[in-house]
Amino acid sequence: MTTITGVTVHDVRFPTAAAGDGSDSINKGDYSATYVELSTDGPWTGTGFTFTNGRGNEITCAAVEALAPHLINQDLSDLFAVGAGGDAGSGGAGAGAGAGGDAGAGGAGAGAGAGGVGAGAGASGDVGARGALGFLRSLTADAQLRWLGPEKGALHMATGALVNAVWDLRAKSEGKPMWRLLAEMPTDELVACVDFRHIDDALTPGEAAAILDKGRIGLGERLARIEAGGFPSYTTSVGWLGYPDEKVRELTRTAYAQGWRAMKMKVGGPIADDVRRARIIRDEIGPDALLMMDANQIWGVDEAIANMALLSEFDPYWIEEPTHPDDVLGHARIQRAVAPVRVATGEVAANRVIFKQLLQAEAIRVMQVDACRVAGIPEVLAELLMAAKFGVPVCPHAGGVGLCELVQHLAIFDYLRVGTSLDGRMIEYVDHLHEHFEDPVRTREGRYLVPTAPGYSSDLKPASIAEFRFPEGPAWR
Amino acid sequence: MTTITGVTVHDVRFPTAAAGDGSDSINKGDYSATYVELSTDGPWTGTGFTFTNGRGNEITCAAVEALAPHLINQDLSDLFAVGAGGDAGSGGAGAGAGAGGDAGAGGAGAGAGAGGVGAGAGASGDVGARGALGFLRSLTADAQLRWLGPEKGALHMATGALVNAVWDLRAKSEGKPMWRLLAEMPTDELVACVDFRHIDDALTPGEAAAILDKGRIGLGERLARIEAGGFPSYTTSVGWLGYPDEKVRELTRTAYAQGWRAMKMKVGGPIADDVRRARIIRDEIGPDALLMMDANQIWGVDEAIANMALLSEFDPYWIEEPTHPDDVLGHARIQRAVAPVRVATGEVAANRVIFKQLLQAEAIRVMQVDACRVAGIPEVLAELLMAAKFGVPVCPHAGGVGLCELVQHLAIFDYLRVGTSLDGRMIEYVDHLHEHFEDPVRTREGRYLVPTAPGYSSDLKPASIAEFRFPEGPAWR
Repeated sequence: MTTITGVTVHDVRFPTAAAGDGSDSINKGDYSATYVELSTDGPWTGTGFTFTNGRGNEITCAAVEALAPHLINQDLSDLFAVGAGGDAGSGGAGAGAGAGGDAGAGGAGAGAGAGGVGAGAGASGDVGARGALGFLRSLTADAQLRWLGPEKGALHMATGALVNAVWDLRAKSEGKPMWRLLAEMPTDELVACVDFRHIDDALTPGEAAAILDKGRIGLGERLARIEAGGFPSYTTSVGWLGYPDEKVRELTRTAYAQGWRAMKMKVGGPIADDVRRARIIRDEIGPDALLMMDANQIWGVDEAIANMALLSEFDPYWIEEPTHPDDVLGHARIQRAVAPVRVATGEVAANRVIFKQLLQAEAIRVMQVDACRVAGIPEVLAELLMAAKFGVPVCPHAGGVGLCELVQHLAIFDYLRVGTSLDGRMIEYVDHLHEHFEDPVRTREGRYLVPTAPGYSSDLKPASIAEFRFPEGPAWR
Repeated sequence: MTTITGVTVHDVRFPTAAAGDGSDSINKGDYSATYVELSTDGPWTGTGFTFTNGRGNEITCAAVEALAPHLINQDLSDLFAVGAGGDAGSGGAGAGAGAGGDAGAGGAGAGAGAGGVGAGAGASGDVGARGALGFLRSLTADAQLRWLGPEKGALHMATGALVNAVWDLRAKSEGKPMWRLLAEMPTDELVACVDFRHIDDALTPGEAAAILDKGRIGLGERLARIEAGGFPSYTTSVGWLGYPDEKVRELTRTAYAQGWRAMKMKVGGPIADDVRRARIIRDEIGPDALLMMDANQIWGVDEAIANMALLSEFDPYWIEEPTHPDDVLGHARIQRAVAPVRVATGEVAANRVIFKQLLQAEAIRVMQVDACRVAGIPEVLAELLMAAKFGVPVCPHAGGVGLCELVQHLAIFDYLRVGTSLDGRMIEYVDHLHEHFEDPVRTREGRYLVPTAPGYSSDLKPASIAEFRFPEGPAWR
C-alpha cells in the first residue's frame, strides 16, 4: 500500500529566450515545466511535468491545483486496478443519468465507484477504489473542469503531468524504468488503462489486447538489439529559420561529420529562402541521408501543397506540421498531394480523438506523439495502439524541457511491445537542458541508449528547481 | 481616441449546484463567468466574459491576466483599423522568419506592425498600431502562450472574453447595440477582422466580402420583420435526464400551453429510458412541434448511430452533440446514418478550423456557435460566414451565464447581413440568471425581442459581482 498524501506543483522556467542569441534560438520562449511532485506515505516521490513555452506556465500550474484533489488520499494500487471502478466509469451513463445530470458535461460515466466525481460531492470527497479507467476519467471528465476542454489545452496538459507522476510513482515502486514496467505489464492491465470511449470505432479493447499479446513474441530479441545498439534518432539543429546560409552549411557539415544521417530543417519563411536553404543542406548531406522539413503550422492547406511542390526536388523525408494541428481534412489533402513525401504531426495534437481521425483519414504517415500534452501514459498508449493498427510508425516529439527524457521510454516500449519494428522509427534529439535532470538521456553516435534507472526519468534536480522557480528563483531575480 | 488603461478580471460564480435541487439541475456545475472590465480614458467601460462551469474559473481568470498586457495602452481605433498591421500579421512569416524563430510556435505572422509580439519584446512592450488582424493575432498567436492551445481550451476562452470586451467598448462608444454595429459596418472592415489563415481553403476574403455585400440587400425589411415579431427560439426545459416520467409529461404540457413549439430533451442515459421519455414528449406535443435531442457528447460513433435508430420513430428534429466534439469524421458518419435527422453541434467546438471541417465533411446540418468559447466576435464572424457559404443554418448555443444575452446579437446580425433567412434558425432559451445583467434578454411568446441598449448586453450588475465574487463574495462565505 502506497498512499498519495500530497501534490506539490512548481513553476520552473529556464530563461532560454534571454540567455540565448535571439536570432539563432529555436524558439521565442523560455522553456518551462509545470512540475509536479506526489508525496506519499512510502519511500518514493512521484514526479511528472508538462512542458510550456514560458509565460502561461502559471496557467497550467493553476490547472494542476484544480485537479490535484482527485489524487489526494488515493492508494496507488487502486489507481491501477483492473475492473474495480473501471466498469462503473465505462458503463456509468446510467448511474450519472439516474442522478439527473447532463450526460456529457455532467457526471455520466465520469464518476466511478460508489461516490462518483460529481460536483455535488466536490472534488475531494470521493475517496475509494476507482480503478485505472475511473481514475483517468476523474481527471478527464471532472463534471466542472471538463468544460475548459474537453481533453485539450491547459487543463489536459495539467492532467498529463499528474497522470505521468502517478505512473512514475508506480515504476519507482517496482524498481523499473518506465519502458520496462510497460513492456512487462500484463495485457489486461494495459488495456484497462485505456479510455476507449470515442475511439472504439477505430480500435476495440479486443484489438488492443491482440496487438499487446502479439508484442510479447520476440520481445527479448528486440530488447537485446537496442541494448546493444541504441535507438535511432535524428537531430533538429541544422536549419533554423533565420540562420544565414553559411551557418546552415557549416552546421550541416558538422552534424554529418558527427554521424547524423537524418536532419530536420525549419521551413515556413519566404519560400525562396526555404528552397535555397534546402538546396544547401541536400548538397552537403548527399542523396542518401534523410532531410525532414518542419513548417510549425504556419501554412494554409493550399499554401502547403504549393510550397511542397517547390521543395520536393530536395527529396524531403517528411513535412512536419504543414498546417493547423486541428485540421484533419487539411492534413489528408496535403498527404494526398505531397506523397510519397510523408506528412508528420502530433506534438500539439490535442488528444486521442484527433490522432484517431488523422489515422482514419490517412492524413499522416508519421505519428509524432508528445509525452505530456495528452493525458499521460494511458492516452499515449491509446495512440501507440492505434498507430500500430493503422500501420503508421511513431517518431515521438522531443526537445523542450525533459521531453527527450520521457519519450525514450515510449519509443522503446513501442518497439518492444506494440509497433515491434525500428523501420521508420526515430526519436527526435535536441541537446538542451538535460543537465537539470537526475537521470538524463544518454546518446552515442546519434542513438539513444536504453535508460536503466527506476521511473520515468522525470526527476528534476532539487538545485535546478530552486534556481529556476518562477518568479522567486535566483535565476529570475 | 479611446485608450484602454486597465484590465480587471472578476471570478464570479453562482452557486447553482448547491442552491438547486440536485436531481433536477441542468448541470453539475456552479454556473460561472470569467468577467472582464476594460477601463479607458473615456466615458465607457468595455465588458466581456467567458462562461465556465464552476471549479476552474480561476484558470480562465489566470489566462485573462496572462493575455491582458496585449490590450494595455491600446487605442480603440487602432484595434479596428483596416490594413495597418493586418497586412503584417497576415504576411508576417517573412518578418518572423527573418528574426529567426520557429514559424508557428514562434513569432512568424504572430507579430504585427513594427514591433511584433515576440517573446523578446515581452508581452507588454509593443504598443502601436496593429490593426484588427494584428490585434487578434497578438492574442491567438502570442509566441509563448500559443503553446497552451493553439486556439483552444482555457486560453482561447480567455481570448474570447477579452476580444468581446473590446467589441463591447466599440459598440458602446458608437451608441449601438452589437447587432446594429455589426450589421452597419462596412464590408471591408468586417472582412479585415477575420483571420483567414487556416480557413482560406474553405472561405476566401473575396467570398466573405460577397456574402456581406449581398447581405445589405433587403436588410431594412428583415430588421422590420424581427422588430415586429421577434426572433424564433426554442426551450431547453422539458426533458432533463433523471426527471421522472410524470414530471416530463407535466413540463412538456406546460411548455406547449405557453406557446413553445420547439423543445429539447436530453438523451444519453440507458436507451430504454431515452425511448420512453421521447414517447411521452412526442405524445404530448403532437406530430408538428419540433423535438430536439441532446446527447452531450456521451456516445461513441457506432453507439450514436445505433441509439438514433431506436429514437428515430419520434421524429427528432436534430441530434445535438452525439459524440466527442473534436470528432469531425465521426459526426460525418453519424450525419450520413441518421439523415434526415440533422446533426447539430458547436457549443464546445474549439475554433473556426473545427467548424470549417464540420462543414467541409457535411458532418452537421445545424451549426451551434458559442459566443465566448472562441476568440470573440471576429472568430464567430468567420463561422457565420462559412455557414452561409455552405448553406447551413446557425442556431446559437445559449444558457449558462449570459449566453442568451450575447447570442441574440449574433443571431440577429446573422439574419440581417449573413444568413439572411429565418428558415431553420432558432436561438436557444434558458430562463436562468438573467436578473444579474444590466440589459437582460426579453422574450415574448417564445421569441427574443430585439435589444436596443448600446453594447453587447454583457454588463453584470455591480451588486451581483460583489455578491458572487469567488471566494470572497457573501454568497460564498
